[in-house]
Amino acid sequence: MIQAKGYAVHSATTPFKPFGFERRDPNPNDVVIASRFCGVCHSDLHTARGEWGGARFPCVPGHEIVGEVTAIGDAVTRFKAGDLVGVGCMVDSCLTCEPCREGLEQYCEPGFTGTYNGPTQDTGDNTYGGYSDRIVVREEFVLSIRHGEQDLAAVAPLLCAGITTWSPLRHHRVGPGQKVGVVGIGGLGHMGIKLAKALGAHVVAFTTSPSKVEDARRLGADEVVVSRDPDAMKAHRNSFHYILNTVAAPHDLNPFLMLLKRDGAMTLVGVPPEPHPSPAVGALVMKRRSLDGSLIGGIAETQEMLDFCAEHGIVSDIEMIAMQEIDGAYDRMARSDVKYRFVIDLASIADAS
Amino acid sequence: MIQAKGYAVHSATTPFKPFGFERRDPNPNDVVIASRFCGVCHSDLHTARGEWGGARFPCVPGHEIVGEVTAIGDAVTRFKAGDLVGVGCMVDSCLTCEPCREGLEQYCEPGFTGTYNGPTQDTGDNTYGGYSDRIVVREEFVLSIRHGEQDLAAVAPLLCAGITTWSPLRHHRVGPGQKVGVVGIGGLGHMGIKLAKALGAHVVAFTTSPSKVEDARRLGADEVVVSRDPDAMKAHRNSFHYILNTVAAPHDLNPFLMLLKRDGAMTLVGVPPEPHPSPAVGALVMKRRSLDGSLIGGIAETQEMLDFCAEHGIVSDIEMIAMQEIDGAYDRMARSDVKYRFVIDLASIADAS
Repeated sequence: MIQAKGYAVHSATTPFKPFGFERRDPNPNDVVIASRFCGVCHSDLHTARGEWGGARFPCVPGHEIVGEVTAIGDAVTRFKAGDLVGVGCMVDSCLTCEPCREGLEQYCEPGFTGTYNGPTQDTGDNTYGGYSDRIVVREEFVLSIRHGEQDLAAVAPLLCAGITTWSPLRHHRVGPGQKVGVVGIGGLGHMGIKLAKALGAHVVAFTTSPSKVEDARRLGADEVVVSRDPDAMKAHRNSFHYILNTVAAPHDLNPFLMLLKRDGAMTLVGVPPEPHPSPAVGALVMKRRSLDGSLIGGIAETQEMLDFCAEHGIVSDIEMIAMQEIDGAYDRMARSDVKYRFVIDLASIADAS
Repeated sequence: MIQAKGYAVHSATTPFKPFGFERRDPNPNDVVIASRFCGVCHSDLHTARGEWGGARFPCVPGHEIVGEVTAIGDAVTRFKAGDLVGVGCMVDSCLTCEPCREGLEQYCEPGFTGTYNGPTQDTGDNTYGGYSDRIVVREEFVLSIRHGEQDLAAVAPLLCAGITTWSPLRHHRVGPGQKVGVVGIGGLGHMGIKLAKALGAHVVAFTTSPSKVEDARRLGADEVVVSRDPDAMKAHRNSFHYILNTVAAPHDLNPFLMLLKRDGAMTLVGVPPEPHPSPAVGALVMKRRSLDGSLIGGIAETQEMLDFCAEHGIVSDIEMIAMQEIDGAYDRMARSDVKYRFVIDLASIADAS
């Protein structure tokens, strides 16, 4: 077995502390990765603090992992030692069901294996994520990183925030000639703006915070609307081809639905702890609008997104922290006080041991 | 002007009574129709009884009209005296906006002219609908009826109930190899079952009433599920390509959303007076499901539907009433006591005058 060092919470109410554990010796199709950086996703907080049911403790969160290959199993063909690689939200799935065969492992019918919180495909055991110095992942779930090494930390959030916004933008064929909205300018939303813009759309960012207007323009938005201003909202009625809604807090969807043209769609990628107010059926019926959801993205489209970002010079806007700062970072993230993603420098784990 | 006899309500709280009024002399592009039968839609009741805002009185409802051409304007090319024709929910629209140019006049951007309750395109005046002995309609909004004359009364409800279910079934490309649900077995739902079945889908009808199970099978459903039975619902989880939801009463959408496969869609065609309970975002996100709405249908697709029904021997199941029985029919319709559409024999209007 491979000795790994990480940080774990042992209950929903206790802080992170150093945690030593074992990773499996590589199977023939496994890649052993020395993890360098790990992004901090709101899901990490939800899980570690028990806000979602089903958390398994000890819990080592983290599913925006970048690092370097240190060893490979005999059957691995796509990676070699020294390669820069990434691991996102999934480390395994059945690989045989219809969604898996279509490259949409996130919709695996028996269920995919999360990078943390399991369950593993064989025994249903827990998995330990990216808040650790190394990880062993089967080849099919390892992504190639073509960005330069200097960008590595800022690439980490692409593995969840990037793909979660990329997948619905691509599924809805966002591109030139389209007016596309991105609601919420946070970890997901700031990536949504960058990606929609790079895909060629006219991008309008929506925020409740006038203080974020300037920053949204810097991120690439062609226009920014303060969504609490009814007149500003009304001026955009019936004009959007597509809206990507990244806000996980319950909010009234109708003012955004009303902005969609006929046959326009709004995708929800955030799951609120309490339901949104019920969307008006009339808003859907009168212009054949649709409301849908989207869950992260498949491995093939994650690679596509990473390659697209490398080509277009796209990374996440990050604040680097040491592993030891994670509890405070969660507190700040809980009040949306981060521009726009914390990334843990995993070299800091060694300091604690 | 052409003298017309009809039945109108003069307020939301008074019964129908005979009403004489004038129809315009035909413009060059107008068709003059001797109306023979008119279906009774729940919208008629909502409007006449003031349950929707904006009712204009006197109100002559009715937008499922079938009859015979008696005269045409000089420029009319597609119809001649003696032709069997139909008029649905629309009698005019701008004809120049993008939806109109695409044959989707129901989504006309300035707004279509309803067969009753207007507003007309020029002056915004009221229009009088099908509860009358004749109507004058511009050629573009007149449909050809290819069913035999003996079917004429039962064809009437196709003009609203038929197209309202046909349009979303076609928009979602329902056909062979698909498992399709129809929720609610009423005026709309019974047409949804017939049409989805004729389009080649495996049709599952959902009803809250065990008493409707047998009838749903007779209408063509391959399976019938009593939606109040959680085990019966659970057995169908993640198995539907598409669900057409015709229920206008507020109800929990989640048990139906959970029946959809990945990328499945549910269309709402009923607008409830109070919102449905808010649909679970997780139900949308976890399988990329979508919820949308649909409004009647365009003229071209209405003609397509009528021709399809003529070819497949499809008509509505109706109960014929005399014009004088309309108030009682509304009372019965309000408690869903009709199988499945009242149709007024407009010959009865002459008796009252």
